[in-house]
Amino acid sequence: MSIVSKETIQKFYAVIPAGGVGTRLWPLSRAATPKFLHDLTGSGDTLLRSTWERLLQISGEKRIMVVTGVAHCQAVKKQIPELDKNNLILEPEPKDSAAAICLAAAILYKREPDVIIGSFAADHVIRKNSVFQKAVLEAIDTANHDYIVTLGITPSYPATGFGYIKMGESLNFAENGTAKKVLLFEEKPTKEVAENYLKSGEYFWNAGMFVTKARLLLEHLNLSQPNIYAGVTEIAKFWDTASREEILQEIWPQIPKIAIDYAVAEPAAAAGSVAMVPANFDWDDVGDFSALARLNSNYSSHKDLTVLGDGSRILSETSSGVVVSSTKKLIALIGMEDVVVVDTEDALLVTTREHSQKVKGIVDSLKLSGNHDVL
Amino acid sequence: MSIVSKETIQKFYAVIPAGGVGTRLWPLSRAATPKFLHDLTGSGDTLLRSTWERLLQISGEKRIMVVTGVAHCQAVKKQIPELDKNNLILEPEPKDSAAAICLAAAILYKREPDVIIGSFAADHVIRKNSVFQKAVLEAIDTANHDYIVTLGITPSYPATGFGYIKMGESLNFAENGTAKKVLLFEEKPTKEVAENYLKSGEYFWNAGMFVTKARLLLEHLNLSQPNIYAGVTEIAKFWDTASREEILQEIWPQIPKIAIDYAVAEPAAAAGSVAMVPANFDWDDVGDFSALARLNSNYSSHKDLTVLGDGSRILSETSSGVVVSSTKKLIALIGMEDVVVVDTEDALLVTTREHSQKVKGIVDSLKLSGNHDVL
Repeated sequence: MSIVSKETIQKFYAVIPAGGVGTRLWPLSRAATPKFLHDLTGSGDTLLRSTWERLLQISGEKRIMVVTGVAHCQAVKKQIPELDKNNLILEPEPKDSAAAICLAAAILYKREPDVIIGSFAADHVIRKNSVFQKAVLEAIDTANHDYIVTLGITPSYPATGFGYIKMGESLNFAENGTAKKVLLFEEKPTKEVAENYLKSGEYFWNAGMFVTKARLLLEHLNLSQPNIYAGVTEIAKFWDTASREEILQEIWPQIPKIAIDYAVAEPAAAAGSVAMVPANFDWDDVGDFSALARLNSNYSSHKDLTVLGDGSRILSETSSGVVVSSTKKLIALIGMEDVVVVDTEDALLVTTREHSQKVKGIVDSLKLSGNHDVL
Repeated sequence: MSIVSKETIQKFYAVIPAGGVGTRLWPLSRAATPKFLHDLTGSGDTLLRSTWERLLQISGEKRIMVVTGVAHCQAVKKQIPELDKNNLILEPEPKDSAAAICLAAAILYKREPDVIIGSFAADHVIRKNSVFQKAVLEAIDTANHDYIVTLGITPSYPATGFGYIKMGESLNFAENGTAKKVLLFEEKPTKEVAENYLKSGEYFWNAGMFVTKARLLLEHLNLSQPNIYAGVTEIAKFWDTASREEILQEIWPQIPKIAIDYAVAEPAAAAGSVAMVPANFDWDDVGDFSALARLNSNYSSHKDLTVLGDGSRILSETSSGVVVSSTKKLIALIGMEDVVVVDTEDALLVTTREHSQKVKGIVDSLKLSGNHDVL
């Protein structure tokens, strides 16, 4: 007996916002080949393709929408040849996640007023797929009870690189249901705070995935960000008409740039409209090269050394860390502990796992110094 | 007033043994492009060319002989277009320094029985040229008094990577002369021993440079290594005849492989026949990448970071050490202390200055594992 009725599942539509360069993964991730177009786990599939494969088991391939930048149109089509042209939204310029997801919501709402949408980033890594599937199904059921439903990941260590969700009372919609109310969202904590979160058992990692009726999402958007609401509903009105491009070019540039967490999730939580389905599948947003090492341990035959890249030859002596190579070059490491080496055709990064968050600073320096060819 | 007569200087012939791959400088130095074919100081000249330029100020360009492997014939000619064909010895296969230098001695001795030869490695770095010139002139004068004369470098720190010379009594051949007898040669010492050497003031670095009558060198060779002596004199007998190649191919393969230090210098010192001219020019045999950092400090504009390589773009954040690049690639370093990064078209090395002696082990591993393309 499923936790959610067949009728409810049929209202579900998955949305994949495929944006974000993945600056901290430079020089692997670039403006032209962002993080979601890479295979960061050695699975053989890009993160985008893996996200697609996970979602089609719930929604079917006709009910997954991808929102991406015009620059990535061909790359996305190549990754997902089966993507219906009505399911592809191309943003003329990046406007952060609120605009991207809410435009998808507005378009889908116009087509199907009772649609339940689920938003899942294109560039996260998820393992234990059956646990993920079960959590999404319960989230769909909970969303059908008029909540904006997030998935809360059971924390496995006191991470300081993720935001947290504080859970409240149980909702008990489904038999054996686990959904809770969400009290509030917390920003990335300090180490000490993160340890207290872990001990309390009341905090979950915010993986940025949520499921909601499109109508409810747009109502909350209208309350907190009326400009975005007006913009995306106006575009949606003409989306399936000959005027799509004209309206898009006129309105999109004026839409405010803001993350959906600030635009909708936090105000909606304060209003008591957000629920959470706790889930303990493996999840990582692969924010930096240190995450890559964490994710891929045991992937490579080099002890303590994570190696990503076909055809690379690695010679390692008393070294550990991450080597990512997109060249055929021989790479020799001697006595490098927790090192990060990323070798591409035109740029080489050498740092440590400890410093891997600082890669963003290098990218900023490259922008300032006019080295646009390697961005 | 010169320390040496014009007549004596005219007997001088410089010999440059250009052998040795420079294994610890892999992947910069390779079998095909050994250390002496690189510019390791950013001077614009290869080490071989710099050696040539230094010596021609003493001997003139017609009296410098180069001994190298057949594989490097074209590269050497390109570096020294003015090299006379009678001054080029091509070894069919490497036989270490005793065979190389003594063959040159035997050929020159046959052509000029009273020749004084001076042997200077093709791949060392020397600065303070006028001090070097003065020391060589005194060495020529001392050699004319029937000594095998080494140049002893005044040690500037307790180096454990060089051999040492223990000096004895003064010889006082020339007015204001500084030549001493050599008591013995010492192998590379431990740190503690090196510190004692430095304190005593009696020890000098053995830079492997020496000046001697060819006749005297060959006499000592005959005593300690009669097989090499017999081989090189037999080849020399036919060198300037049509039978050169035939005799060379027949005899060379049988000649024992041994360094000239063991073959001649040490036994001759024990026999009281070796002298030393102390000199305090800057000298380094550039044995590894750590030496490269030592030599090039203040060369690069990156604080504490030595950068070698045209056209490379380096972005360094709180990093120090050595970067050698033979590509046009952008190289970014974050938080790497005393790092060694060597990037070439087909191989990349990442290690620390502390581990730079271990590069030889990597090259050995590459040989064993059949990665001959990058050797």
